[in-house]
Amino acid sequence: MKIRPLHDRVVVRRTEEETTTPGGIVLPGSAKEKPQQGEVIAIGEGRFVDGQLRPLSLQVGDKVIFGSYAGSTVKIDGEELLILTESEVFGVLEA
Amino acid sequence: MKIRPLHDRVVVRRTEEETTTPGGIVLPGSAKEKPQQGEVIAIGEGRFVDGQLRPLSLQVGDKVIFGSYAGSTVKIDGEELLILTESEVFGVLEA
Amino acid sequence: MKIRPLHDRVVVRRTEEETTTPGGIVLPGSAKEKPQQGEVIAIGEGRFVDGQLRPLSLQVGDKVIFGSYAGSTVKIDGEELLILTESEVFGVLEA
Amino acid sequence: MKIRPLHDRVVVRRTEEETTTPGGIVLPGSAKEKPQQGEVIAIGEGRFVDGQLRPLSLQVGDKVIFGSYAGSTVKIDGEELLILTESEVFGVLEA
Amino acid sequence: MKIRPLHDRVVVRRTEEETTTPGGIVLPGSAKEKPQQGEVIAIGEGRFVDGQLRPLSLQVGDKVIFGSYAGSTVKIDGEELLILTESEVFGVLEA
Amino acid sequence: MKIRPLHDRVVVRRTEEETTTPGGIVLPGSAKEKPQQGEVIAIGEGRFVDGQLRPLSLQVGDKVIFGSYAGSTVKIDGEELLILTESEVFGVLEA
Amino acid sequence: MKIRPLHDRVVVRRTEEETTTPGGIVLPGSAKEKPQQGEVIAIGEGRFVDGQLRPLSLQVGDKVIFGSYAGSTVKIDGEELLILTESEVFGVLEA
Repeated sequence: MKIRPLHDRVVVRRTEEETTTPGGIVLPGSAKEKPQQGEVIAIGEGRFVDGQLRPLSLQVGDKVIFGSYAGSTVKIDGEELLILTESEVFGVLEA
Repeated sequence: MKIRPLHDRVVVRRTEEETTTPGGIVLPGSAKEKPQQGEVIAIGEGRFVDGQLRPLSLQVGDKVIFGSYAGSTVKIDGEELLILTESEVFGVLEA
Repeated sequence: MKIRPLHDRVVVRRTEEETTTPGGIVLPGSAKEKPQQGEVIAIGEGRFVDGQLRPLSLQVGDKVIFGSYAGSTVKIDGEELLILTESEVFGVLEA
Repeated sequence: MKIRPLHDRVVVRRTEEETTTPGGIVLPGSAKEKPQQGEVIAIGEGRFVDGQLRPLSLQVGDKVIFGSYAGSTVKIDGEELLILTESEVFGVLEA
Repeated sequence: MKIRPLHDRVVVRRTEEETTTPGGIVLPGSAKEKPQQGEVIAIGEGRFVDGQLRPLSLQVGDKVIFGSYAGSTVKIDGEELLILTESEVFGVLEA
Repeated sequence: MKIRPLHDRVVVRRTEEETTTPGGIVLPGSAKEKPQQGEVIAIGEGRFVDGQLRPLSLQVGDKVIFGSYAGSTVKIDGEELLILTESEVFGVLEA
Repeated sequence: MKIRPLHDRVVVRRTEEETTTPGGIVLPGSAKEKPQQGEVIAIGEGRFVDGQLRPLSLQVGDKVIFGSYAGSTVKIDGEELLILTESEVFGVLEA
């Protein structure tokens, strides 16, 4: 089962965030606060603004970063997913 | 008796949510929190935006997912139904 | 004496709601919470949106359903009536 | 001295509300809560909406009904008057 | 020193309000609550609405009435003046 | 170092306010509450309204008056400056 | 890893603020409150306003000043960065 989000919403699968300390040591995500990162797995069709359908800026596969309290958690097939509006997404992480 | 919702509202019949655990075991809905899923049984005629009637994105029969506190519960012929605006619906569940 | 509501308001006379249980037994309204149904007895002339007068979707005689706390109660000729904006009405009940 | 209200405001003189019980007995207003009725004694020139001056729907002499907490009370020549925006007026009472 | 108010603001000098009781006795303002009246001594150049500069409806010299808590008090040359937006002014008092 | 404010913001240097009592005695600012006056030392490029860049009404050098709690204080080169949006400025003081 | 901010957001690296007292003594930032300054390291593509994409006023490399509580802090590769909307930025610091 999958979700087709409406309008300007996106579905995000949270990912464990690995961080590198200034000195280069990788800390696995488990010792830290709740991750604020995830991967977009579905996007809505966009929003009507000034009479025109404006498609979203995000794409499926984008790794995104967002606030700790953003969005709503839903359970699909036993998996917790996050549903956000695009405006709740801060930006896209690029390698 | 049935409800014809106004404008951008939809009528939803809550459904029991079955979830599959990562290992594939199906847990019936009864052991969990209140379901956040349902089926659209009626939709409004749409909303006027920038001078044009914009029909809804949802259709009758869509299985939808929404927040726990969304909408208003009404009783029609002894059955509890939920009335939501389309913007309260997160997305459509597809097989 | 009657009320001619302004703009997008409607006047509603609350009705006792009869409900049928799943098994078909009719429960009269008196054993339940405050009814959320009524009949439209007057409607406003509509609202100006984007420079055009948009008439209401509701019509006199419509049986409507609305939230428990919607609208304002006024007394006209000793009768309690409810004044709502159309956007507070969830939908129209049809036989 | 009189008030010329600005924009979409109207000046209302509260009236004592007489109500008739279902059986036809008139109850004078004194035994009840604060009246929510009055007569329009002055109206503003209207409001600019989408670049056009939209005159008010109310007219001087209209008997209006409004919420208990609507508007602001001012004293002119020792008389308490109520200043409301037109949108705070529910409707016009007609014989 | 004088104030040239910006946009849709006006500068008002509060006046003592004299009221006449129904029987015609004039009560000087000192025995009452804070006056809600004043005289406009300066007006702003107006506000841009839908791309056009809309001049104010008020004029210098207008005697205006306004809510007890409206506006901000400033001291100019030792005199307390009130700065209001035009929308905080209820209306103009006319003889 | 100086600040180039963005959009509709202005940078203001607070000034000590001297007031003249009705009888003409000048009270220096130190015996009073926090001054609400200042001089504009930089202005933003304006704001886009209805698709057009609208320049600000204020100019560098204007002596302005504003509410006690308006704006944000920043320290530049050890000097406290105030950053306000133009709409927080009540008006311009003129000699 | 780097962040491409969405819409009207910018990514800012906080900088330690050095201030010069009126007498010219430089105080290093460590003895003071949290710095409110930083350098823009990435900007969004702009925002749609009235049907047109409006690019941001800020540019990468701009030294900006902003309120103490503005924006959200995120950790990228172990470094704390701040994500702000352009409207939260007060202005650009210029030498």
